[in-house]
Amino acid sequence: MDADHIRQVYERYPELFSKGDTDAVVELYADDATIEDPIGSELRVGKEGVRAFYESTMGGAVMKRTGAVRIAGLEAACPFVCLIGPEGPDQKALDIISTMVFDESGKIKQMRAYWSFDAMRSANE
Amino acid sequence: MDADHIRQVYERYPELFSKGDTDAVVELYADDATIEDPIGSELRVGKEGVRAFYESTMGGAVMKRTGAVRIAGLEAACPFVCLIGPEGPDQKALDIISTMVFDESGKIKQMRAYWSFDAMRSANE
Repeated sequence: MDADHIRQVYERYPELFSKGDTDAVVELYADDATIEDPIGSELRVGKEGVRAFYESTMGGAVMKRTGAVRIAGLEAACPFVCLIGPEGPDQKALDIISTMVFDESGKIKQMRAYWSFDAMRSANE
Repeated sequence: MDADHIRQVYERYPELFSKGDTDAVVELYADDATIEDPIGSELRVGKEGVRAFYESTMGGAVMKRTGAVRIAGLEAACPFVCLIGPEGPDQKALDIISTMVFDESGKIKQMRAYWSFDAMRSANE
């Protein structure tokens, strides 16, 4: 468990999200994990809460990393863009930063995402 | 106090940091603010702690925003790069994400920065 592990989780996360691979995403999380995505929304708790969250949000959206993973000990943050809808003039984009806290075994124990529907923009800008 | 205000603070912050304008940076913070920069380091508390932090870190480094400010209610996050040393082959760069929590009056009450000296890289990459 080190910075390389955290970097790998952050690289796999958008790939798995984009594929809609719920099992593999849930596997990244600790049993007692919490998710607040977006910040201010209902807190999702534990494996069941994590699974329910991804089952309700994945599907269709493509997530890409748009910058370096910033790591400070067991905490990290990374910028993403989420592309919503088919490629073309109507595709939308949402800029997101997700922060994660890892436990000593390398599982995500907290994930919080900074974004708002207000900031939805055209993906072609 | 709204998302536009938060966006403006995030736009001014790297400008003021790069100019070394301690008074103006301290003015962005609430009286009871805390800073943890980088995460894991000593917590700086209150206006005096905030001032001491910037007096010890500003000077020479140029900070630039490298992506959109992501806002969720009173919390926000933004990617930055810090350029260290004179322009040229030896200039270094540090990728940073700073999260901020704002109070109702629009002052920063918490700032946390994700980065590590290990991740220092050449600015010319």
